[in-house]
Amino acid sequence: MSAERQEFESARGGVPLNEPEVAERGTPVVDHAPSHAGEPIPMHGSREERAGPYNVIGQRQRKTDGLEKSTGRARYTDDLTLPGMLHGKILRSPHPHARILSIDTTAALALPGVHAVVTGDEMPIPFGIIVWTPDENALAVDKVRYIGDAVAAVAAADEDTAGRAIELIRVEYEVLDAVFDAEEAARSTDVQIHEAKKAGHNGNISKIVKLEFGDVEPGLAESDVVIEGEYYFEGTTHTPIEPHCAIGQWEQGGAAEGRLTVWSSTQVPHYLHRELAKVLEIDPARVRVIQPHVGGGFGGKSEPFDLEFCVAKLAMKTGRPVKILYTREEVFYAHRGRHPFHMKYRVGATADGKLKAVDARTLLDGGAYSSFGLVTTYYSGQLLAAPYEIPAYRFNSTRVFTNKPACGPKRGHGSVQPRFAFEVTLDKLAVQLGIDPIELRRRNFMGSFRRTVNELRVTSNGFMECLDAVEAASGWKEKRSKMGYGRGLGVAGSCYISGTNYPIYPNRMPQSAVQIQVDRSGRVAVFSGASDIGQGSTSLVAYIVCEELGVPLDYVRVLPSDTDFTPVDLGSYSSRVTFMLGNACVDAARKLKALVQDAVGAEWDIPPRRVLLAGGQAMDALDTGRNMPIVKAFNLAESKHGTLGSVGSYNTPNDVHGEYRGGTIGASPAYSFTAHVAEVEVDDETGFVEVKKIWVAHDCGRAINPTIVEGQIEGSAYMGFAEALMEQNIYKDADHGRAGLHNAPSLLDYRIPTSVDTPELQALIVESIDPEGPYGAKEAGEGPLHPSIPAIANAIYDAVGIRMDRLPFSPPLVWRALRERDAAAREPERMAAD
Amino acid sequence: MSAERQEFESARGGVPLNEPEVAERGTPVVDHAPSHAGEPIPMHGSREERAGPYNVIGQRQRKTDGLEKSTGRARYTDDLTLPGMLHGKILRSPHPHARILSIDTTAALALPGVHAVVTGDEMPIPFGIIVWTPDENALAVDKVRYIGDAVAAVAAADEDTAGRAIELIRVEYEVLDAVFDAEEAARSTDVQIHEAKKAGHNGNISKIVKLEFGDVEPGLAESDVVIEGEYYFEGTTHTPIEPHCAIGQWEQGGAAEGRLTVWSSTQVPHYLHRELAKVLEIDPARVRVIQPHVGGGFGGKSEPFDLEFCVAKLAMKTGRPVKILYTREEVFYAHRGRHPFHMKYRVGATADGKLKAVDARTLLDGGAYSSFGLVTTYYSGQLLAAPYEIPAYRFNSTRVFTNKPACGPKRGHGSVQPRFAFEVTLDKLAVQLGIDPIELRRRNFMGSFRRTVNELRVTSNGFMECLDAVEAASGWKEKRSKMGYGRGLGVAGSCYISGTNYPIYPNRMPQSAVQIQVDRSGRVAVFSGASDIGQGSTSLVAYIVCEELGVPLDYVRVLPSDTDFTPVDLGSYSSRVTFMLGNACVDAARKLKALVQDAVGAEWDIPPRRVLLAGGQAMDALDTGRNMPIVKAFNLAESKHGTLGSVGSYNTPNDVHGEYRGGTIGASPAYSFTAHVAEVEVDDETGFVEVKKIWVAHDCGRAINPTIVEGQIEGSAYMGFAEALMEQNIYKDADHGRAGLHNAPSLLDYRIPTSVDTPELQALIVESIDPEGPYGAKEAGEGPLHPSIPAIANAIYDAVGIRMDRLPFSPPLVWRALRERDAAAREPERMAAD
Repeated sequence: MSAERQEFESARGGVPLNEPEVAERGTPVVDHAPSHAGEPIPMHGSREERAGPYNVIGQRQRKTDGLEKSTGRARYTDDLTLPGMLHGKILRSPHPHARILSIDTTAALALPGVHAVVTGDEMPIPFGIIVWTPDENALAVDKVRYIGDAVAAVAAADEDTAGRAIELIRVEYEVLDAVFDAEEAARSTDVQIHEAKKAGHNGNISKIVKLEFGDVEPGLAESDVVIEGEYYFEGTTHTPIEPHCAIGQWEQGGAAEGRLTVWSSTQVPHYLHRELAKVLEIDPARVRVIQPHVGGGFGGKSEPFDLEFCVAKLAMKTGRPVKILYTREEVFYAHRGRHPFHMKYRVGATADGKLKAVDARTLLDGGAYSSFGLVTTYYSGQLLAAPYEIPAYRFNSTRVFTNKPACGPKRGHGSVQPRFAFEVTLDKLAVQLGIDPIELRRRNFMGSFRRTVNELRVTSNGFMECLDAVEAASGWKEKRSKMGYGRGLGVAGSCYISGTNYPIYPNRMPQSAVQIQVDRSGRVAVFSGASDIGQGSTSLVAYIVCEELGVPLDYVRVLPSDTDFTPVDLGSYSSRVTFMLGNACVDAARKLKALVQDAVGAEWDIPPRRVLLAGGQAMDALDTGRNMPIVKAFNLAESKHGTLGSVGSYNTPNDVHGEYRGGTIGASPAYSFTAHVAEVEVDDETGFVEVKKIWVAHDCGRAINPTIVEGQIEGSAYMGFAEALMEQNIYKDADHGRAGLHNAPSLLDYRIPTSVDTPELQALIVESIDPEGPYGAKEAGEGPLHPSIPAIANAIYDAVGIRMDRLPFSPPLVWRALRERDAAAREPERMAAD
Repeated sequence: MSAERQEFESARGGVPLNEPEVAERGTPVVDHAPSHAGEPIPMHGSREERAGPYNVIGQRQRKTDGLEKSTGRARYTDDLTLPGMLHGKILRSPHPHARILSIDTTAALALPGVHAVVTGDEMPIPFGIIVWTPDENALAVDKVRYIGDAVAAVAAADEDTAGRAIELIRVEYEVLDAVFDAEEAARSTDVQIHEAKKAGHNGNISKIVKLEFGDVEPGLAESDVVIEGEYYFEGTTHTPIEPHCAIGQWEQGGAAEGRLTVWSSTQVPHYLHRELAKVLEIDPARVRVIQPHVGGGFGGKSEPFDLEFCVAKLAMKTGRPVKILYTREEVFYAHRGRHPFHMKYRVGATADGKLKAVDARTLLDGGAYSSFGLVTTYYSGQLLAAPYEIPAYRFNSTRVFTNKPACGPKRGHGSVQPRFAFEVTLDKLAVQLGIDPIELRRRNFMGSFRRTVNELRVTSNGFMECLDAVEAASGWKEKRSKMGYGRGLGVAGSCYISGTNYPIYPNRMPQSAVQIQVDRSGRVAVFSGASDIGQGSTSLVAYIVCEELGVPLDYVRVLPSDTDFTPVDLGSYSSRVTFMLGNACVDAARKLKALVQDAVGAEWDIPPRRVLLAGGQAMDALDTGRNMPIVKAFNLAESKHGTLGSVGSYNTPNDVHGEYRGGTIGASPAYSFTAHVAEVEVDDETGFVEVKKIWVAHDCGRAINPTIVEGQIEGSAYMGFAEALMEQNIYKDADHGRAGLHNAPSLLDYRIPTSVDTPELQALIVESIDPEGPYGAKEAGEGPLHPSIPAIANAIYDAVGIRMDRLPFSPPLVWRALRERDAAAREPERMAAD
């Protein structure tokens, strides 16, 4: 056993290799299912039905909430003030790992203006976004596990008083040894952050996923070339503009039962609804979650947080509304950002560049709690298997706990890090084989409507068009390796999911739903629990309603997500919204459209299908001079069919009773594809990398509103660029202050690019028209981020010949790599001189 | 021609008697339709289907908003404050009739803190709640027609500044002669308040309805006894606790089009929505009306008012929200209360008390505008034709304009006044024939499932049970005419509508609609534009949802009326809500119930109809030990059928395409019936009438919540009692100050009873279980008022032998009647002495 392998074995806590773990009930992938690769894929829907031309879909138009936001009228959670509202603050642990021996709240409660204090023993039920890993408490019950872990909360007349009060809470801790390094955590048996979950594991093992598809070792053995590499991805965080904020309100309900309302800047009102009910032990029918406008999430608000439970509990204790707004420092503690990954890849290929086998080993540093870690661990391996044909694939991913803020999902959840490693590996392969890197990727293109070796059912696939687009736009052929020392071009490709096949808790209910109501004035109301975090889901449903029902955009009203009045949508994560919510909305709108067509058809004595609804009118498709205002058409339909309302929903095809017969669909109902070319200029003297421009071609299926798609593409590329060059989540070690303390929990120190720092970004839309997406749409919010980092890394290589296998590509690291390159180059000279 | 008849002829402005006017298109009754009296009546629904037993319906329980209101958390319109909100005031005419020559707003606009002034020329489009009579303007355009008519409005930083500003507006008036007396108005050709509507009318004729059914003159000629009488009903007003209040908000919508939102204490959000769009010339799809909690209406908020247009227009002019709250004085000017009626009746009967023919002539004093006057004029005649069998019936009703605040609908709209006159006439008949007044009424009972002579299709009819109930409860047989001088009992009966057959504007769309959504937590959301003005419509839909879906009451959430998100319900008037909204809600809920029964039935392999939903559980009806929590049942249904949402609606049966084959149903789909017995004590010396107790038996069809029904019965009897003894809308005449000025526009002077003044009230519920009502329900909010006044009048006769044919029965009028009685008694003595 090699030392490297040994290291990984121990990281797995002693579980023998190739002995697959039994997957937890209902976990989101199938382990070692019989392969359906190459079988025809039954489609859910048909191309023809989803064909255009469309009147609204595909048009550039404003977001429905754009003006409200740009004029400052939009109200975010912290803009809300309720009569008699109190303000809360949370006391956080100063220790990375300690046992709580006692908490004395006497002095805090005695402070004038303090209304209540709450501690963990009042909310002992653990929670977790993933139902199989509930390992968090609203407030620490027995132990604290990172600096910033929540210990107690206070409600007071104002924030200042609450702040003074938490300083008066006396907590007696028994400080425990802590562990900050993932590999040390995997080995350690002295420091156990959680109870061991399984016999043979230590308490620091969060999740292990080992899966093998095809014959990897023979594939590698038969390869003409095997590229091995080791990559480090330091963690990053989301830094949304709006810090987390929540308000709780408790109303006595007449009898003994009360009702809880929580306003929160959450991405997942439905999951928050569930967890509030569970932790606070309230019947979920008596819990209401309202989502005001959200000032960005990027995955950082996609699970419940301590503040949401604390405002609820404090409201219940005081009978008054309570608000907590995180400081920016607390946002860094809340974290749930991108995991640090330590990755090793072995990639085998033929001499002409065709991939033969991939072997991946990954150690994920999860921080103190599970969060979405179970999913992250699967995604770290599963999502690599497209867009390239990989005949044999094995991955072994282990997530460990450390005494740092918990990591979770950040835009491109779980797959940005392996994509970085793999696309750099492909670049190395191309260089070694002397094949143009774009050509190498073309040669390995998997095609569309195929299954991957690991059972991902890929439908539409516009990756080749993406490669073509960035190649042409960037002037690749003219410029790559031809711009002289210090300047270079790099390419990378990727794929990502459009929603997850399974919901986060197992059930067969729809993942998205829309209820619609048409008023006789022409106004169309849309109800959905979908979560608009700025990406435009509210606009999406409005566009669809306009397309189907023919009304102008400002006839549409969308009720903001409110669990009392909107049907369940699982939330904004995993790029699920356009695909799933869009399909649900099409479903609901077409039911109403049929009623309107029927009534107008009867009026004109023509078949209903001949009635077009568009541009504020109902028209005879064969004689558009024959038309009536859409309001009149609605009134005819209401007179004939009664009040016009409908409901539509979406679930993934293999979860809909007998409708789908193609086996599991794998991770997602559809996949998006992206290619980047980055152009960089590297200053040899300082190591400063200037990204001159990034060309991004993204197959979003169908651009429902090209302006929003371009915004998502640019935003993704911006975020990838930021992670490549600037962002880094660093915790102090014992040599540099208090071990485990976040190094720079402020936007002064944690560097994100300003508009001045940001390179020129060119978004290129590729539309593969997915047969199952709404109008063919897939996703655009996360996929375009993936190739950012490897494209820049590969461009740096093209510019100055160094391989950046560790993030970020900041001047110190780049300078060091340049000097190591120089030293290596001088080595033969030195040896020759010896 | 008798002098009396001549007088009425002239009151009709010269239209020849017995030459019926052509009814306006779509007006709510059929003139001289072929009689269907006595034909079998096809029913809409079946008794069996609506049979019990029920788990929720019929149970006493709290109102869903009771706690919110009683703890002060409920927010009424004036409780709302929007950022940057301005306050408005309306300048009102000091003249009862004048032409506006000019308006100079310069000084008002120059006052610091004033943001805008609006005058009538900016909103020239006339409006009116009845589409055929749009004769009002938001602000006077050319003329003012009563003291208090709105002339201009100001928006300022605060109410005081707005108040100062309206005093700075200079209006140049040409004062015109005014007319305050209805009979003078009918005759006058010098004073023309409006343009004449028809050739041959003068401009003061608002509406004339003359209808004859059966052969009246032969009937009277063949009668053994004919009672003639003349009655005066002075007007009263509603005095809701909450004064009218509205807030307007204008948002630019991105393009040129804006969006208007108006919050208003209205009873008719849908009609307000329509009229705002019309007057302000905004696409109705861009107008939103929100109804916060309403602090009472009683008909006084059931049409648009000046303030709603003014807040909208001022918001559009300033770009800021604007609120106007009426002073109590302004509520009196807004009025729309009960019309003064001058009534003459000739009632013929056989010697054994069977009615032969009724001839009624009525002059209605409408005040300055039409309001609901067209309907009032019809109702003044049409609704008298039950519960007694009247073989021949003629009425001739004329509504005129006068220079006073406009009259409109008040609880018991249009029929309280004739009911007073008619039931006193019946008492006279009983006395003259020596028949017990209750027995006389029994002898004339029309029965159930019969058509009246004027085509009212009466379905269930519990009037006989009502008579039995008050007779027994009051100890009628032991006490009537047996309690000695000064104490007496009186009886009266009545019938009223449960909603109107036709909507206020002609269309074939549903009159009520409900949209429902079931959450997987068990929460049920209900959307309806129904208007809860305190009567409990919100609770009603919650009870129905609980009955049908088996959830606890606090699982139900009802979105308050909001035209952006709730389907159209025509509003709270004409006792339409329980019947129509209830039926719509049953419709919507049963669609969902069927899905849940189907899913649970499939799970248990039993027929869906065997699945009971009750008490938070789904049960096998044949083995209730076999059950599951209702939440699980919902989840099964959602898994099988997708997200659970439905829509239900109601329209009157002869307006639903081919479903009903019984000819017109007349005024209403169902009728409620009431009997009162009042016990009084009359102080011979002062004329003070003390009502000791009122027994009220009311056939509400089915008491969905007996506590609310009793509250409505008591509230109605209270209001009738108040009108009988205390209330009086008086305007000054030239001899007593400024002619046309309201005598006492304050709650210090306008007398309504306090709880100390109020007699003991005993509500007796009679349930006739109407086959078309929801669970058999009809109405309880207005019907129980009708017999109050005649029962008290008849009790006064029983006590002291005087006939009170003019309201109110206040000490001066009663004292005068007593002394006239004494004088009449002395007359034979005097003559004998001569």
